[in-house]
Amino acid sequence: MTRITTERKYSGRIIDLDVDTVKFPDGSIGHLEMIRHPGAAAVVPFLDPHDAPDPRVLMLRQFRHAADGYLWEIPAGRLEPGEAPESCARRELREEAGMTAGRVIPLVPILTTPGFTDELIHLFVAHNLSSVPTAREPDEFMEVHEVHWSEVGRRIRQGQVRDAKTLVALMFVQCFLLKA
Amino acid sequence: MTRITTERKYSGRIIDLDVDTVKFPDGSIGHLEMIRHPGAAAVVPFLDPHDAPDPRVLMLRQFRHAADGYLWEIPAGRLEPGEAPESCARRELREEAGMTAGRVIPLVPILTTPGFTDELIHLFVAHNLSSVPTAREPDEFMEVHEVHWSEVGRRIRQGQVRDAKTLVALMFVQCFLLKA
Repeated sequence: MTRITTERKYSGRIIDLDVDTVKFPDGSIGHLEMIRHPGAAAVVPFLDPHDAPDPRVLMLRQFRHAADGYLWEIPAGRLEPGEAPESCARRELREEAGMTAGRVIPLVPILTTPGFTDELIHLFVAHNLSSVPTAREPDEFMEVHEVHWSEVGRRIRQGQVRDAKTLVALMFVQCFLLKA
Repeated sequence: MTRITTERKYSGRIIDLDVDTVKFPDGSIGHLEMIRHPGAAAVVPFLDPHDAPDPRVLMLRQFRHAADGYLWEIPAGRLEPGEAPESCARRELREEAGMTAGRVIPLVPILTTPGFTDELIHLFVAHNLSSVPTAREPDEFMEVHEVHWSEVGRRIRQGQVRDAKTLVALMFVQCFLLKA
């Protein structure tokens, strides 16, 4: 597929919306709506070593207008211009959860919903945490909770965790880090 | 949080973009960009019983303009007006993968990226598949592949699967269906 032209339909605070004219693999021409996003990072903060019995992680209870309520999430946020994903993960961990991390390990990058946005979120795990003051944005409303891993699993299975990046990060840890 | 007004900034084929004026929990007033989406369904199609040794699933290799390349995905698509999520999952399974399912089981619903869209994807697993002709949209370019479960796990671990709904659905099956 080749992009022929891009028309910016909306330029906003968080996102921009383009309509791209593209040539499809079969040679036909079409139009695709595309939300352009700067990318983001998200991090699973472990309070205990992840091989400890039933380790605790930090989770956020965050108000989301899109869900018209509070969601269980992990600390996350947009990349600033020129910011490396790991630096962003460390910054969001500090600002949202009030923690610095001795060690941050990359998991995988994910495309949140590639049908209409190029948003890529880089996922991480953080260890060796130390408390620092939080520094949230004026429009961020959230509480930090310590949750045992067994309880994390129970909430996921029961459908109480609905945020995709949070689900991917937590289950990736379960499938590939804890079982290794 | 209370929505005070909504201003439609863009109305498109797939998505609409609103700027909502809202009252935050602390009483302050703010503006939030919100992509309105009709919702979607996605389905993990099992060719073999999921308790068979190393069962096969169907995966799509789908071209995505947002990724500028092909992604590994599961069959998925938007809800039509009034369509139930399970009906949508069955329709997308038929249209994209050329299969009808004897049994479709719900997993969980997920919010793909609640910072800027209300898109909710209902995840399912399908069993007892029978072949039917595919019926893809003119702008859908994809191949159907049979993949063994051990290979699915390898691709996820190595970061070859990047689509969030696909990752959540596959790892949810791994964590809560196959290990049950």
